[in-house]
Formats: sequence, structure tokens, C-alpha cells
Amino acid sequence: MIENDLLLRTIRKEKVERPPIWLMRQAGRILPEYRAIRSSLSGFVELVQTPKLAAEVTVQPVDILGVDAAIIFSDILVIPECMGLEYELIEKKGPYFPKTIQSEADIEALDAGQLAAERLDYVFDALTETKKLLAGRVPLIGFSGAPWTLLAYMIEGQGSKTFSKAKAFLYKHPIAAHKLLEKLTETIIAYLKLKVASGADVLQVFDSWAGMLNKELYDTFCLPYLKQIVDSIDEIPVIVFAKGAYFSHKELTQLGSDVMGLDWTISAEAFRKQYGYDQVIQGNLDPCVLYSAPSEIEMKTTKMINDFGGHHICNLGHGVYPDTPLEGVKTFIKTVKNHTYHQS
Amino acid sequence: MIENDLLLRTIRKEKVERPPIWLMRQAGRILPEYRAIRSSLSGFVELVQTPKLAAEVTVQPVDILGVDAAIIFSDILVIPECMGLEYELIEKKGPYFPKTIQSEADIEALDAGQLAAERLDYVFDALTETKKLLAGRVPLIGFSGAPWTLLAYMIEGQGSKTFSKAKAFLYKHPIAAHKLLEKLTETIIAYLKLKVASGADVLQVFDSWAGMLNKELYDTFCLPYLKQIVDSIDEIPVIVFAKGAYFSHKELTQLGSDVMGLDWTISAEAFRKQYGYDQVIQGNLDPCVLYSAPSEIEMKTTKMINDFGGHHICNLGHGVYPDTPLEGVKTFIKTVKNHTYHQS
Repeated sequence: MIENDLLLRTIRKEKVERPPIWLMRQAGRILPEYRAIRSSLSGFVELVQTPKLAAEVTVQPVDILGVDAAIIFSDILVIPECMGLEYELIEKKGPYFPKTIQSEADIEALDAGQLAAERLDYVFDALTETKKLLAGRVPLIGFSGAPWTLLAYMIEGQGSKTFSKAKAFLYKHPIAAHKLLEKLTETIIAYLKLKVASGADVLQVFDSWAGMLNKELYDTFCLPYLKQIVDSIDEIPVIVFAKGAYFSHKELTQLGSDVMGLDWTISAEAFRKQYGYDQVIQGNLDPCVLYSAPSEIEMKTTKMINDFGGHHICNLGHGVYPDTPLEGVKTFIKTVKNHTYHQS
Repeated sequence: MIENDLLLRTIRKEKVERPPIWLMRQAGRILPEYRAIRSSLSGFVELVQTPKLAAEVTVQPVDILGVDAAIIFSDILVIPECMGLEYELIEKKGPYFPKTIQSEADIEALDAGQLAAERLDYVFDALTETKKLLAGRVPLIGFSGAPWTLLAYMIEGQGSKTFSKAKAFLYKHPIAAHKLLEKLTETIIAYLKLKVASGADVLQVFDSWAGMLNKELYDTFCLPYLKQIVDSIDEIPVIVFAKGAYFSHKELTQLGSDVMGLDWTISAEAFRKQYGYDQVIQGNLDPCVLYSAPSEIEMKTTKMINDFGGHHICNLGHGVYPDTPLEGVKTFIKTVKNHTYHQS
């Protein structure tokens, strides 16, 4: 059904000839072809909400870079939006919520679940449109923010170096925090199931601000909700990427997700030594390696592939940075595509 | 010589009745008495450069909060400044360097070592002044930024979510990077020795952006320079705090520093289990715990003290956040001061 199903075979732990490769943020940051479309529009949010254009930029990296998967061009903050908390994306600054969550009443007032998720028809239309454009060439990844990461933005109202307001909320108002996390989880599950219905082949959950917490907070406010999400999706594989959550790596391997994403701070060697070779891993080249000379990129990529030793989806350990040279990206992809696992 | 020498005895691994306590950023963020002085001045840098006032705000937390050590009110960016790279501190935004390091020639042009460090007479005067005000009550901590953290600011010119320009410099120009790190190390050592001569009783090296790297980068660009610093200072104890450097915890325990600072992301329990009970630790309560109810602060503080089980200096796992309620800070300090290690 899918022509290049290397990603799916890797996730199923079948024997593969090489690791598949795609890049977090491959759509929407680095390609001149993307920037051309983007600059013709009023803003990022307009692009997210226009299915035809979102589909076009989603497929660009498949056409131009030859990656083994597409990931839908969208934003994690569409979930707060469909629950009733609108956001803007301010150029070079990031997301901004004019209204934030401050009290239990604010949480009560939010919509949740199917009712809320169904409002995101522009995302589902973008998936349908993308599937047409892909015409079965590679799998399409749908995604969502994780409950904690979305809560963090909804309370802070914007990015933060410490996310201290959001963390203070967990400590001071644990019951209200759980209430919000439950509403988010319910909405995320409905949203992801609608993505499956719209043609997603794989799903990824981004817990971008996991690293602000610690094991105790992660055990209490994150893992139970991630588990609910993972347990609810049995239609297609789920990747969980909890950036910075080294303190919960063991628990994340036991979560029951199909793939565990890793950031660049842990080496493949250290991870496999500590947690074994069974877990399918996605990651985790330092995005800054792509600024290096080609020989350096080749060397570090090959070492990573060898050190993970299979059950591995090549990716960066973070979204590709906006000023990454395209040549670096191409060298990374070429190195992976030229790799051949040793025959045993 | 020093009335309350609990900090020094803990560092020497003597038997103590309770852990000592002080807070990173205890001077200059949370006290209304600090804000009163600060608001009468044109800016943060003016305060740093006025020894009498710097000494006054240094001693405030000793007088008002009853902490077991003073840490000189200053800034890690005085080192780039004395090397020839001036900075400003922009309110609510952070440091900004009008000129940054872009090439080997820029590095060549920097002053270094004793020559550069001696220019920071206002810091040494502030130490002398502080010693007078303290009159032997508690030890005085002097500090410096670590080479990598200072390099990061000198290349980026300001704070960054990813420090991708600085990291790209390490990957693309390793020889130039080492050259700059050497110059920084030489200057830091001279600077710290001048602090010793001005009365510092303990020194702390802050590697605030360690967590942007990984083991390979840390081994190459950070640990050798930290080792040089630690090996060069044999007059008084040295604390090394590499925030986010979980991937190098083992190497940091072997560095030869007297104390290892820990951020809040690793639990006392996990650290001791992995690295044993011999290392003197400083840290590591999550700064956001101080937003909680008093009973919660007491419980989490006591658990941390028990889990470290001695050889422990109580502190937060990060600088105290500006909007931390003073009551939370006081509860934290009171809990530690009321603690008694079980007699064996």
C-alpha cells in the first residue's frame, strides 16, 4: 500500500536494509520553497489553517530532500485553540496567548474531547490533501503536543526559560492541574483518532518541555496521561518524544509506545548500554552537527547508526534549527540512505 | 576565624549537625531591600561596578534571611568584559553584547590572564568591602562563569534557546574554539586567584549552559578546562556547578573539585544510588517548590536532606527565580536550620 514503507517496517522491528530518516520540523523551516510560500501569506497561522498550502509544504521535503516520511505541517497549539484558548505566533518570538489559564474556573470553561477536536477540520483536511499528494510514496506522520507541554503554554501564555509559572501551578494547584491534564488528554486522544481517520500512518506525541521537570513531577503529571494516550491508540504506531526527560528514560521505555524519541544529550552508546537494544529509538543527532563539514556529518551519523545497532529511525535530537545550511541537511540524509546494515 | 563555619566543615567532610544552606542568586533578586537599592540606580551593571553597594546587597541575605554563606553580588559576564568584550544588561531580556566573537582574529584581539583580570578591581574591592561588613560571621563565596558558558555568550551575543551559533562554532572551528577556551581559562584562573587574595573563602564555577551540549562535546570543550581551573586553585575549596550536564555526572565526580553542584532534574536518591555517598553535593531543590505551601516545602526539603544523607550543602537546583515568594524562601531556610542529622 505504501511504496517506501521502511519507517513502518522499522517500527514493526522487521529486518531492514538501512534506518529510515526524516527530520523533526523538516516542513516549515529550512527549504527556500517553503519560505516562498510562507512569505506570500500574512502569517504562520494562516498557513496552518489553509489545508492546500499546509499539504504542499508537508510534501516538499519528500520531493526535494527524499526523506522516508512526511510529517503534517501544523502546530501543537491547535489543541489549546480548539479548547477555547486562541494563540498567535509572533515572528521571531514564538507563540503568544492573549488569555491564559489562571484558575479552576478557567479550566472549567474549556471545551474538551471530541467536541473540541472536531473543530480542527483544517488539520484533517490538510492530512487528506497530503495523502492525495503523496499518492502512497511514504508514510504520513500526524502529531500532537503532550498534555504537560500544552498545559505549560496555556498557563505561561508564551515560551519561558524556566516555565516557572506552569511548574508553580503543578505544585500549588495539583488538583486543578490534573483536571486540565485530563481535559487535554481527552482532547488529544480524540484529535489523534481523527488524524488516523484522515489518513495518518504514524503518530508522534511531542513533550517538548519534559526537561523542565524531574522524575517525581514526570511520574505524577506526565506519564499517566502519556500512557492513557498510548493505550487509546491501537490503530497505528505511536512515537513519544519527551525532550530532556533523561530522568524518566526507564519509565518511557516501559510506556508501551512503539517508538521512543531521544534528544541529542544522550549518546546512542550510553542509551543502549543502560536500556538494551530492544526499544525502537528515533533520533538523535545534535542538530548543530549539521553546521559542520560534510565529513564530520558523515562520521557522526555513521557512528550514531552503528551505536544504536538497529531498531532505529534516524532523526535529529531536536527540530532542525531555522538557520541550518541545506547542504548539511542533505549530507545527513544522503549518509543515512547510503548506509547498509551489516548482514548477519 | 569564621563564626559560622558550617559550610567549610561540610566541604572538609567533617561531622556536622545539619547541612549548611545558601541560595544561588540569593543576592539581587528576591529581597525588597535589594530592590530598593537597585531602583535608585541606572542599571544592574552600575550596581555590579559600585563596590560599596555590591557589598551591601551581598550581605543582605545573611542579615535578613540568615543563610550560612554570602555570595558576592556580581555577574559572570565581567570576564568577557575585562577581556575586551563589553556587555549591557537589558531589563527583562538579559545580557547583550554589541560586539561578538566571529573569527580567529576576534579571539586574537582579546586580552587574557592576569592583565585582563586585574581590570576588575571593582569586584575585588566589593569582596574586601563585604569581608568588612561580614566581620567573620559566615564564609564569602566568590564565583566565575565556566569557559564554555562564557564562550557561548561571547559568540551568541545574548541568551538563546538553543545556543546553536555557539555550538556551531565548536563543530566548525574547533581550533579557534580551543584557543578562546584557553584564553578564558587563563583569565578565569587569574580572576579567581585575585578573589582569593581579596578574601573569598570558597569559589564556585557556574557552567550554566552545560546542558546544551552532550558527553562528547563536554569531554572535548569543557572538562579539560574545568580541570585546569580546579587544579590551579589549591588555596580554598572550589564548587563546580554544571547545569544540565547529567551526561557527564560521572566525570564531574572525578574532576577533583571539592563540591559538585546539581540541578533539580536529578533526585538525591538517584544520584547517590549511581555515584555513592562520598561526593560533597550542593543543591538541588526545584526552585519552583518554593511557590508551594509551607508543609510541601518542608516535606520536600527534608526528603532531599535525608536522601543525600550527609556531605551536602542545601541549595536550590538553579538560581532562585525573581518572583519567588519570600515566605517560601524563609520556609526552606528554616526547615534546613531546624534539621538535625541523626546521631550514629
